[in-house]
Amino acid sequence: MKIIALDSSGLVASVAVVEEGTLIGEYNIQYKKTHSQTLLPMLDELRRMIELDLDTVDAIALAAGPGSFTGLRIGSATAKGLGFAMNKPIVEIPTLDGLACNLYGSDKIICPIMDARRNQVYTGIYEFVRKDERDESCESLSLSYRLSILLKQCAVSIEEIAAKCNELGREVIFLGDGVPVFADKLSELMTVPYSFAPVHMNRQRASAFAVLAFDYLKDGKAIDAAEHAPEYLRLSQAERERNERAEK
Amino acid sequence: MKIIALDSSGLVASVAVVEEGTLIGEYNIQYKKTHSQTLLPMLDELRRMIELDLDTVDAIALAAGPGSFTGLRIGSATAKGLGFAMNKPIVEIPTLDGLACNLYGSDKIICPIMDARRNQVYTGIYEFVRKDERDESCESLSLSYRLSILLKQCAVSIEEIAAKCNELGREVIFLGDGVPVFADKLSELMTVPYSFAPVHMNRQRASAFAVLAFDYLKDGKAIDAAEHAPEYLRLSQAERERNERAEK
Repeated sequence: MKIIALDSSGLVASVAVVEEGTLIGEYNIQYKKTHSQTLLPMLDELRRMIELDLDTVDAIALAAGPGSFTGLRIGSATAKGLGFAMNKPIVEIPTLDGLACNLYGSDKIICPIMDARRNQVYTGIYEFVRKDERDESCESLSLSYRLSILLKQCAVSIEEIAAKCNELGREVIFLGDGVPVFADKLSELMTVPYSFAPVHMNRQRASAFAVLAFDYLKDGKAIDAAEHAPEYLRLSQAERERNERAEK
Repeated sequence: MKIIALDSSGLVASVAVVEEGTLIGEYNIQYKKTHSQTLLPMLDELRRMIELDLDTVDAIALAAGPGSFTGLRIGSATAKGLGFAMNKPIVEIPTLDGLACNLYGSDKIICPIMDARRNQVYTGIYEFVRKDERDESCESLSLSYRLSILLKQCAVSIEEIAAKCNELGREVIFLGDGVPVFADKLSELMTVPYSFAPVHMNRQRASAFAVLAFDYLKDGKAIDAAEHAPEYLRLSQAERERNERAEK
């Protein structure tokens, strides 16, 4: 089974092609270009480098939100276009779940934070738990740990997510583009031990989304390209302002 | 400080450009092309995508061995050429140390294994330990854990490394291109709990080598491009056969 994975939900543009057991290729950048300048050219470059026959692809995995509104729309449009042209389903992965997967196997609480502006972060709380013996099959190289969601992805203040992490009373690793924005604030707020993911693990990677997508596909959680829409979690600025005007 | 990192020590070709705190770009493939067809074209593609001015680069980090002899020579030649042309130093990172860094922050024993043929693996044993309070400075986003080497990289049989891991009596995560080759063997040999890294963390990534290279640079451990030579750990087949002939 082969998956193309895309992420343009935040500052990073990332594309990956993953076959079960093998990351055939991944290309990530975090640079001051718009995702419309990067995402599809990067996929095209990767496709040529690994001589990918698009007919052999089974699904398109996508960081489906939350995140930057424009970034999500570019990712969704690209995934829908590919899915429609290739007649392949889309697997929608919650952005924060995919980000948490960067720290697979950690025994700490994992708290991805993305800067959502307006004094909020997109965040969630996760941990990896060892699958029970019946699930376990090291021989087949399947995963021994599964991602457990302690707090589903949401948009809250940094104070609120810090308080929820503190309540758990366990060491936390933070990651995501919210870290440089809120690091000082966290140093005031956190009462449990905490740290930040290092540079090679601290942003979205399409391959982490692909890893979750294999599980989604096994559970039949793929949808037709026409049905897909990104999960913004909040209203866009334009919608918010229209509502505010209507209320006046 | 900005680093170009290269890895062609195994099945993966990987290039990355890392600034402290930011992975500006990374491109990895694991495909049936030779590293001479991939490594430099990938770096050139990445350089153009992120509009990299080579004059702003401070050093070239390299997976310096062990690994595939041809792969290491291609990586070394590329790094030496770049270092010479750009007049920048080379930071030699032991291949197995860089591979272990994929699992930063894990509380398990980390055992990277690369298939070294002739019934051997290139391997090592690692763990991440929390730096003591004096080192710690979460505010500056510096790393809270450091890589501790329990067994320095070496070429041994899979039986020998499995026995050493068992002796430690702690859960182990294996990763590297030796995993699919030796997974069945490990299921016979291992007496402690163990698992395998998932697909997005189980092979060399240039960015992980860059993370270690920042520490090396701070410690003054960079060398002139002219001085660099890869660390093969074993004699090449040609040298071995010449010696065998000489002994007869």
